Amino acid sequence: MIVSALLTSVGINLGLCVLFFALYSVLRKQPCNLKVYAPRLVAEGRAGQRSHFNIEALLPSAGWVRRAWQPSEDELLNSCGLDGVVFNRIFIFSLRVFSVAAIIGIFVLLPVNYLGDHLRDIDFSDLPNKSLDLFTISNVKDSSNWLWVHFSAAYFITGVVCYLLYSEYKYISNKRIAHFSSSKPQPHHFSILVRDIPSHGRSSLSDTVETFFMDYHPSDYLASTVVCRTSKLRGLITDTENLYRRITHLKSMPSSSQNQSHTGFLGLFRKNGDLMGHYAKKLEDLEQNVRLEQSDISAGREVAPAAFVCFRSRYGAAKALHIRQSTNPTEWVTEHAPEPHDVYWPFFSTSFTQRWISKLVVVVASVLLIVLFLLVVAFVQGLTYLEQLEALLPFLKNILKITVVSQIVTGYLPSLLLHLVASLVPPIMKLFSAMQGYIAISEIEKSACNKMLLFTIWFLFFANVLTGSVTSQFQIFLDPKTIPERLAVAVPAQASFFIAYVVTSWTSLSWELNRTIAFIGDLISRRCSKTNDDDFQIPSIPYHSEIPRVLLFGLLGFTYFLLAPLILPFILVFFCFGYIIYRNQKELLNVYQPKYDTGGRFWPIVHNATIFSLILMQIIAVGIFGVKKLPLASSLILPLPVLTLLFNDYCRKRFLPIFHDFSAETLIKKDREDRNDPAMEEFFDKLVTAYRDPALMPIRHSTNSNDHSSPLLSKV
Amino acid sequence: MIVSALLTSVGINLGLCVLFFALYSVLRKQPCNLKVYAPRLVAEGRAGQRSHFNIEALLPSAGWVRRAWQPSEDELLNSCGLDGVVFNRIFIFSLRVFSVAAIIGIFVLLPVNYLGDHLRDIDFSDLPNKSLDLFTISNVKDSSNWLWVHFSAAYFITGVVCYLLYSEYKYISNKRIAHFSSSKPQPHHFSILVRDIPSHGRSSLSDTVETFFMDYHPSDYLASTVVCRTSKLRGLITDTENLYRRITHLKSMPSSSQNQSHTGFLGLFRKNGDLMGHYAKKLEDLEQNVRLEQSDISAGREVAPAAFVCFRSRYGAAKALHIRQSTNPTEWVTEHAPEPHDVYWPFFSTSFTQRWISKLVVVVASVLLIVLFLLVVAFVQGLTYLEQLEALLPFLKNILKITVVSQIVTGYLPSLLLHLVASLVPPIMKLFSAMQGYIAISEIEKSACNKMLLFTIWFLFFANVLTGSVTSQFQIFLDPKTIPERLAVAVPAQASFFIAYVVTSWTSLSWELNRTIAFIGDLISRRCSKTNDDDFQIPSIPYHSEIPRVLLFGLLGFTYFLLAPLILPFILVFFCFGYIIYRNQKELLNVYQPKYDTGGRFWPIVHNATIFSLILMQIIAVGIFGVKKLPLASSLILPLPVLTLLFNDYCRKRFLPIFHDFSAETLIKKDREDRNDPAMEEFFDKLVTAYRDPALMPIRHSTNSNDHSSPLLSKV
Repeated sequence: MIVSALLTSVGINLGLCVLFFALYSVLRKQPCNLKVYAPRLVAEGRAGQRSHFNIEALLPSAGWVRRAWQPSEDELLNSCGLDGVVFNRIFIFSLRVFSVAAIIGIFVLLPVNYLGDHLRDIDFSDLPNKSLDLFTISNVKDSSNWLWVHFSAAYFITGVVCYLLYSEYKYISNKRIAHFSSSKPQPHHFSILVRDIPSHGRSSLSDTVETFFMDYHPSDYLASTVVCRTSKLRGLITDTENLYRRITHLKSMPSSSQNQSHTGFLGLFRKNGDLMGHYAKKLEDLEQNVRLEQSDISAGREVAPAAFVCFRSRYGAAKALHIRQSTNPTEWVTEHAPEPHDVYWPFFSTSFTQRWISKLVVVVASVLLIVLFLLVVAFVQGLTYLEQLEALLPFLKNILKITVVSQIVTGYLPSLLLHLVASLVPPIMKLFSAMQGYIAISEIEKSACNKMLLFTIWFLFFANVLTGSVTSQFQIFLDPKTIPERLAVAVPAQASFFIAYVVTSWTSLSWELNRTIAFIGDLISRRCSKTNDDDFQIPSIPYHSEIPRVLLFGLLGFTYFLLAPLILPFILVFFCFGYIIYRNQKELLNVYQPKYDTGGRFWPIVHNATIFSLILMQIIAVGIFGVKKLPLASSLILPLPVLTLLFNDYCRKRFLPIFHDFSAETLIKKDREDRNDPAMEEFFDKLVTAYRDPALMPIRHSTNSNDHSSPLLSKV
Repeated sequence: MIVSALLTSVGINLGLCVLFFALYSVLRKQPCNLKVYAPRLVAEGRAGQRSHFNIEALLPSAGWVRRAWQPSEDELLNSCGLDGVVFNRIFIFSLRVFSVAAIIGIFVLLPVNYLGDHLRDIDFSDLPNKSLDLFTISNVKDSSNWLWVHFSAAYFITGVVCYLLYSEYKYISNKRIAHFSSSKPQPHHFSILVRDIPSHGRSSLSDTVETFFMDYHPSDYLASTVVCRTSKLRGLITDTENLYRRITHLKSMPSSSQNQSHTGFLGLFRKNGDLMGHYAKKLEDLEQNVRLEQSDISAGREVAPAAFVCFRSRYGAAKALHIRQSTNPTEWVTEHAPEPHDVYWPFFSTSFTQRWISKLVVVVASVLLIVLFLLVVAFVQGLTYLEQLEALLPFLKNILKITVVSQIVTGYLPSLLLHLVASLVPPIMKLFSAMQGYIAISEIEKSACNKMLLFTIWFLFFANVLTGSVTSQFQIFLDPKTIPERLAVAVPAQASFFIAYVVTSWTSLSWELNRTIAFIGDLISRRCSKTNDDDFQIPSIPYHSEIPRVLLFGLLGFTYFLLAPLILPFILVFFCFGYIIYRNQKELLNVYQPKYDTGGRFWPIVHNATIFSLILMQIIAVGIFGVKKLPLASSLILPLPVLTLLFNDYCRKRFLPIFHDFSAETLIKKDREDRNDPAMEEFFDKLVTAYRDPALMPIRHSTNSNDHSSPLLSKV
């Protein structure tokens, strides 16, 4: 890629960004879009109704930027939990790291690269047509002493990143402890989930649980809720709800249109009144079935061998959690209880064999996904090499000869395609994780986040860098000695592709700001129906797709820091945009509402990914100095990954346990604070029923209940 | 190797065995050898003094075999702890497995191999000069259908082994729980070791510990013992003891010899009386130093940031052990307390940096050891190929032409050398493990056992199988696809070497029976001095060297089960000999006394090693069927390793946790039993001081104390 192509790409994307920003600032002022741009405000009833027309509302403004900037971290914590704060810290951390990196990169490494060894013939003429390679390390001559600048930069940036990582880990773990210490008593602090409860035949499962815990934890045990298999019931409830929605929809239609649509063709359809009656009858039957099934389950006929056990103190719960309960390690298996609304109930319906099979299915499905996406990546890579594309599709030859088209195709299209394709993956990964048998939605998303991270690193980085077939990609790992050199050759070659990718990502961020898909979806639904006003859902931030996406740019920044420092300012702009946009979405003008609170347990993933990026940078540095025939630097850089790994090891020991569970010290202190709180008795009363399966709650749309039955029946 | 060479080797070894057995039965009847052959009896004062001469005592007999056979497992448990029982179970398990394997091997596989595809030309003439290869799978023709017999045998033996492994694991874990349930209260059940105690400057370390545990475990906490740095004191005590020993030695010599030896040459040596006085003075000074140092340490000036904390109940200790104590995970780190006499005190003297450096040293030393032993193995392998040896050392040509010599050199010498060299390794491995920073001798030996296992499998198996340089050996793992085939070619080629190795091992077992080295050592010491009667030590069984040695034969048995079933009867004989000999050493006529009781924690090592051997057998089977051009069998054997690994995974979940710690159920039950025991108060009184560093005990050889000073001073 040449400089002018890069500039075209930057131009297009900046233009698009400005357009989207302006569009956003106009659209969000329209009251009809409130549900798209501030669903949380609407849900919480905080949205002021500005019904009168205002010319100001049609002018773009930048007030939202200022408002997104203002809130302090404590306000952030209150409005979107510690996970939101952690997500925000990723941007702050990245901004800090890449500010330092960009300063070194642009003012030290870039000049060294550009000048190569030819200090004298500085030549800025014809810059637009020069290749971007001039700004990369490839331009420095072999065994040049200038390479020692890169060497020092590698050591310096590693030191800076480790220092920042350490302080960030410390900051967040302190926040986590403080958040716990200041939190109100919550059900999941006092509860554990017990699985694989042995059945004795004689007594019921709930009696078995009660006896066991009363026997071994007499002073701590409070109550237990046996988990039921509710897949059948769930199906019935969904059917009921669908039917109820159809009835409401039918009801809301004007009589004329009802008649038009339903008393038509050859009188085959019954009259609307008949239809309503039929549906109401069916609904009544369904609800009867639901109630029967509920009473069946409550009678204890459909129990899973699992129970939520609640204790009188947090320390009591910790004791039961950490000490193996039963002599047989496969019985009475304990684990952390998730928050009640975070429990993934369908999981309990599956049997052990089903879970085992689903795991196998997940493996097979992952393999298929890998193959599918490698094909896509291969195609996308083809686009960056116009000659290949021309050879493949000869009829494009003439079109591609037009400069603008070829610049768009090489500079913009490939990365746009990658962005699009990559956005399809998160839901798939979440589905895979759900099949794996996690009991909490937060756990599913954490696992999906890890999967996405692997996917992102592999498919967006390695598959693009290591061109060739899947097998040839994997073969690099069978010959570990050559990895640094192969990477040192392959990674710089893709510099221009990734610079273009980073630039395109600005636009995808402004898509996020505009919530384009939600906006279009809302537009369509408003055209089609007018009744679904009540059941719109406040979206929760999809950490499992957003965190890996952000981390990828960190990886790109680190790996290209030494090789092509030109990428750094673009990455910095990305993080700036991201910081503002995500704060805006989470903030007072709020889009997302947290679905769960893991207490910042996403940070270790970020930490590990950053360490991985650092190590990768160092490995590439080893290779680069080897390729550039500076073996001394190549050997002297070897202690760096070792030191980084030692640092990581220390962090694992020092901070990671804090993210798994709280210490006896913390728990006992918190318990003592609560001991004299009169509100605790009330809390314990609620705790007893906190973990009831929502499917067992009385259903609301019942035709027999007072509020709904009357309008329905009166119409019939 | 041809059949006659094998027979020579079997003859030599059987002869040696009979000789050693006879020697043993005679030697052990001599009262003067009691200390070598029944040191435990002597120490416990159970050895009857048969002073009158008896002709019977000079005749070999087999009574010891019967006596070794008799004791039941409970008697074994009482006399040498659960570890002894586990060691015994290894032999029982191996005998069971290889009885089945030998029956199939000899009566099914061997005929198939020998006949190859030539069912008709059965030819037993000239058997002695036939190659052993006739009995291996190499003799079966490519893509012969007879190979399906081997295929079925692989499935069958895997099933048998897994069933036996499962029942053995279950048996031993039940034994472990029963052993714990029936055990008397022991200090290490009630204690934990706390490390990295933060120092506050103001208060002393013991106060800090006391305050912390009184605060967070008020109902359970009993007492704590702060660990001191005693390396200097230890040095002083050793000096004192050496000096005391010298004085006692001097004292015991007859006056005349004293005068002869010490008032000699030119009167340069002072008189014996002077010498005694000088020594006594020096001893007094040393002991004064020891006492000063002890009071220094007791005053709390030399404390390590670690303490043994004792609790009032086992469950209380478990709570403190399993729940992280401090908010900072690097402080108040808890771990299992070893038995008081099992604590490896020197460890506490080293600082964190020292331990870190020692770990690095261990790594470097291991690399050196690997290189050294590879050289040895290369030399030994040279011996099996006479031609190579002749080329290397041409002057041996004539000697090697003598049949007997060549048979001895090829059939006996290589394996004898390997045995000798391998016996040097265990002490080195134990030293390495000690340097790694384990706090208990049992932990050190467990870690050394794992190291030895790796070493044994690598150096005695792989290094012999995969001839060539170290790098070429490791390169096999860089190309995983070819591993089965390369092994399938290399392993059968070494069949005759390993058959010879197994046969030689019989002799080394009878060495163990005769305690040859201890016997010679005792002989020499008795000739040289007569005073050291009191301080002979009862040896403890060196599990870290014995278990890997026994397991190697399991590995050989499994890997050659399909390839060269001829090895199986020899292995069976080995296990029979081993069973009897080790029972004899541990039994009533006892040599070894257990130094610690890990409660059978060596079994998981045995289990894992067996699973490894099975997988290796299966991988080789995949390769063999590939080489033999039976691809269907090669693919159909693939599920077998997968199933084996799944089985292993289940065992890990089902049994392994039992070997780490006991469940709440077990602990609470045991605590309740003790609650009404009046002896508990007395036990708690003792518990408070159980973990005092033995170096801080008042020293016994003091010249100022009453019992020793008088004889010493009276002589002066």
